[in-house]
Amino acid sequence: MESPIQQYLEQLLAEVQHLGAGAPYDVHPAGREPRPGDFGICLATVDGRVYSVGVADQEFSIQSISKPFSYGLALADYGFEAVDEKVDVEPSGDPFNQISLAPVTGRPPNAMVNAGALAVAGMIRGAGGKSGVRRIVDTYSRFAGRDLTSSRSVFDVEIRQSDRNHSLAYLLSSVGIIENDPTRALEVYLRQCAVQVSCRDLALMAATLANGGTQPLTGEQVFEIDVVERVLSVMMTSGMYDDAGAWVSSVGMPAKSGVGGGTLAVLPGQAGLAVFSPPLDGHGNSVRGLETCRRLSTDMEMHFVRSARNGRSAVRITREISELPSRVRRTEEEAEVLERHGHRARIVEVTGDLFFAGTESLVRAVSELEDTVDFVVLDLRQVYDAGRLARQMITALQRQLAAAGRELVLVTGEEAPSLTVTDDAGPESSAPAVYQGLGEAVEHCEDALLDRYGTPAAAPERVPVTDSPALAPLAGPERERLAELMEHRVHADGDVIRRVGQRFGGVHFIVAGRINTIATDPGGERVRLNTLGPGMTFGELALGTSDRQETTEKAVGDVELMVLTPEAIEALEAEDPGLALQLWRALTRDAYTLVDRYLREAAVRLTY
Amino acid sequence: MESPIQQYLEQLLAEVQHLGAGAPYDVHPAGREPRPGDFGICLATVDGRVYSVGVADQEFSIQSISKPFSYGLALADYGFEAVDEKVDVEPSGDPFNQISLAPVTGRPPNAMVNAGALAVAGMIRGAGGKSGVRRIVDTYSRFAGRDLTSSRSVFDVEIRQSDRNHSLAYLLSSVGIIENDPTRALEVYLRQCAVQVSCRDLALMAATLANGGTQPLTGEQVFEIDVVERVLSVMMTSGMYDDAGAWVSSVGMPAKSGVGGGTLAVLPGQAGLAVFSPPLDGHGNSVRGLETCRRLSTDMEMHFVRSARNGRSAVRITREISELPSRVRRTEEEAEVLERHGHRARIVEVTGDLFFAGTESLVRAVSELEDTVDFVVLDLRQVYDAGRLARQMITALQRQLAAAGRELVLVTGEEAPSLTVTDDAGPESSAPAVYQGLGEAVEHCEDALLDRYGTPAAAPERVPVTDSPALAPLAGPERERLAELMEHRVHADGDVIRRVGQRFGGVHFIVAGRINTIATDPGGERVRLNTLGPGMTFGELALGTSDRQETTEKAVGDVELMVLTPEAIEALEAEDPGLALQLWRALTRDAYTLVDRYLREAAVRLTY
Repeated sequence: MESPIQQYLEQLLAEVQHLGAGAPYDVHPAGREPRPGDFGICLATVDGRVYSVGVADQEFSIQSISKPFSYGLALADYGFEAVDEKVDVEPSGDPFNQISLAPVTGRPPNAMVNAGALAVAGMIRGAGGKSGVRRIVDTYSRFAGRDLTSSRSVFDVEIRQSDRNHSLAYLLSSVGIIENDPTRALEVYLRQCAVQVSCRDLALMAATLANGGTQPLTGEQVFEIDVVERVLSVMMTSGMYDDAGAWVSSVGMPAKSGVGGGTLAVLPGQAGLAVFSPPLDGHGNSVRGLETCRRLSTDMEMHFVRSARNGRSAVRITREISELPSRVRRTEEEAEVLERHGHRARIVEVTGDLFFAGTESLVRAVSELEDTVDFVVLDLRQVYDAGRLARQMITALQRQLAAAGRELVLVTGEEAPSLTVTDDAGPESSAPAVYQGLGEAVEHCEDALLDRYGTPAAAPERVPVTDSPALAPLAGPERERLAELMEHRVHADGDVIRRVGQRFGGVHFIVAGRINTIATDPGGERVRLNTLGPGMTFGELALGTSDRQETTEKAVGDVELMVLTPEAIEALEAEDPGLALQLWRALTRDAYTLVDRYLREAAVRLTY
Repeated sequence: MESPIQQYLEQLLAEVQHLGAGAPYDVHPAGREPRPGDFGICLATVDGRVYSVGVADQEFSIQSISKPFSYGLALADYGFEAVDEKVDVEPSGDPFNQISLAPVTGRPPNAMVNAGALAVAGMIRGAGGKSGVRRIVDTYSRFAGRDLTSSRSVFDVEIRQSDRNHSLAYLLSSVGIIENDPTRALEVYLRQCAVQVSCRDLALMAATLANGGTQPLTGEQVFEIDVVERVLSVMMTSGMYDDAGAWVSSVGMPAKSGVGGGTLAVLPGQAGLAVFSPPLDGHGNSVRGLETCRRLSTDMEMHFVRSARNGRSAVRITREISELPSRVRRTEEEAEVLERHGHRARIVEVTGDLFFAGTESLVRAVSELEDTVDFVVLDLRQVYDAGRLARQMITALQRQLAAAGRELVLVTGEEAPSLTVTDDAGPESSAPAVYQGLGEAVEHCEDALLDRYGTPAAAPERVPVTDSPALAPLAGPERERLAELMEHRVHADGDVIRRVGQRFGGVHFIVAGRINTIATDPGGERVRLNTLGPGMTFGELALGTSDRQETTEKAVGDVELMVLTPEAIEALEAEDPGLALQLWRALTRDAYTLVDRYLREAAVRLTY
């Protein structure tokens, strides 16, 4: 099915196509005249999906759209301070080729006007056996995700028509902003302007900036976030010629245009946008490029004020762990302790991104928990991205809780962002416990609660089969009689006792040790359903309709069992139907206790 | 427990306090001299939580921080076009009290410099029996969430020292920007500057802008989002005197300062920030105010480029409905149909905010589903906020699917944003089906799949008790014998047949009609656990350990039952232990079939 976003872009292209004003840039090699009707729009998301309509793959000169990328390269090479000494960050209000420097500072006002771009070009040096121009073209290529080239023929005609830029370069040299040969700086600048890109390339370059400097398709981190922040800031106020304020008001995205017909805009965190249409207005901006950006900003609510409406709450719910018990089947005594003290362990479920607002709501939820809450489980499995603040605040929460004898436990899932690394090197012992699954985290809290509030007798190490709760409805002598019919078995740690698909192999009573019940989810993943301990039973499930074992049972540590085999049951039914009846009734009762338990869990879990 | 955010702010206050540079504004009534050491920081979230440290409640003059709010009032009163004719939106690069108009347009460059603010003050008229000044003070009050007042004594000293502003007002009058008495415009302006606010007030005013114009505490929509967008755009480029570009680069938040010592900054969508500290730098900005904003932007990653890292994917998972079956217990024939055709109904689970990136990923996920998917369930219960684009795109998806004989079903939860209202008035019949719960939506899809792909015989209307699957292990004569022991009962629609807490009342076999099983979740909410149909049983659950009914069973339509009462079972056990044994074994088997089913569901659902 065709995407409605694709359809929207096609409709937008058709509507904006009719704008006939403007004339293409008139400096170009013979035979490479721009065609005024060419028009393309590309939109690339931060995860690399590219939507394109119209002329998306035809190459043209990047021209001034090169400026932010070279500026970023200079910032990365020399640091902010050194670059700021040469080029300011103020919008100029001047035409792009104005020959003037800021009256107070003597520097070009910003790196988006020609004077600033020439100053930047003058700074970029060769390195690692590569010339400055080579490094520039390489950088652009890493942004585009493919090898770009600078056109010799474009350069040749540009250099012959660059009197104003020559003048600017010498002016910059005269005040010491360009420290070496000004003609070399000009050559570097004109070669970077002659790099050939397509509309698709520009969209991916924009998406790389939107993505904090990481190319969406190659995954390469081309610029650090600090550099991206600076580059986008300057593009926001100075990227479009002459009308910085109107651009911010009407479009509200950092952007850059070039006389080659390209326009690039960035929706930070979300997408990159590019338009190709050669006819230019009096300021040197693409007529259709401007209109397309305006339309997209409005229709898709990309303005920085609107696109930022992402603040609400990151805390979805907080609940006591007794509402989501672990799958460890506890004894009645243990269950009672957990019921009485379950409110002392609380799960805080967090969702979305943890930047300021999300972090604040997380911190608020934890800070406002009653002091009687000993264990705080932060379920972060639905957090997609997190900033430095989130890591710092989680560390701060952990330390504050630890200082009061309380504990913070993190659940991160497999793909959650690294929230556990703190910037300041605190003692490692203070790091919070981290679990991938909520079940393990809850189990940890339950064990800790039992340690803290349970009596030593709460978790018996050994339950004789005659004391098994499943047989509780039977009288003592009957239980003794059944025990005599059972087989005594022992298993070592890791032994698979029952396997999926096996036929009913008897009712297994656990005398000592623990058993993990493992099932396979529809994705083929093996998941632990629960953990059973002394006094509990397993194996009866195969009595269900399928007559097959649906789970695998595995020993945890040394295990001692008493097993009532199918043969023993058969013999019992023949020899003592009355006792057999009592056994079956007890097993039914036990089964419905389980069903009941699952139903009660379902009433809580009902995401439904 | 004290919030780490509160602690951070306290630490920040202590660190910035030492900055001793600057001098307070020197025009003030006798006895109201600003104290240079006063310092407060307040941070208000869009849901109304206010963090405050230092001097938070002391009143001072709002001064130039009034400008964006009066500008917004004028925009709301007269529309953008009329206001833009009088005041441009370009950063000026001029000091705040510069006597100059833009060379080309003849208008003040923006509403944040005095010339622009005077032009705006000249436009605001009285209405509804209120003077212009009264309306201005009322507007500020609605932003602050409390009644503010303009200080007479502050106005009296200001008006005597306002030669430059007098000059500006007459200059604006000379070029027709101020159309009426320029001294009246000046008076309005000085009265708005004399409004008394606290640091807390300013934080809430900022939070109202951050919140798209809705006051977080009162819930009142003071400005429309369009006006907020414009106001914040101009604040971004022109809110801080003289260094627009540096401000955007280093702080990256729309902001406004006032010579009264206040500084206000806005993190769109997330929070409002205010600082109070009287000493000013040479530009008229609060020295500590600037530093606090810089620190907060860096430490809390509030810069517009960083705070926008919210794009990732809104689609959490897509799965077939057979992985999350409805709680309607289907017959074996029905279950087979659903198993064979379950892939034709798909659940797309969406989370987070639906602005551009989220909407795009939702649209992509749906567009890329195979054509064989007949039913698409969009689970939007974890969507917190959604823009216009999301509504438009969901409507577009719905129409495209409907045109191909496919169906879009929405699950919105109780508090989900209204995603079903489209801007264009399409025919109502084309609106997608909307359910509050996923269960109902899946049930709808299952029913539709059964209609489309099932045989008419799939859902029997009547199952004699002797054909009940629970009794299948027994031979025909035994089943007949048990049937003879049962009571025949009928119930009307809505009858409560079994109620929570009742003792075991027998095994109920459904012959005709349907039964809803209702449980109470820990929050006290009644939730439907499942729906049972002919051939199924209920009531055995009370055989579990508690011996009590854990659920309520309610008739849906006319219901016909056969009930094996506890007395009948007891009699059977006494008279025919062999048959009783077979019954119990069958019930055990049935119970474990249920346990098995729950375990398999758990393996899927394991949010665990």
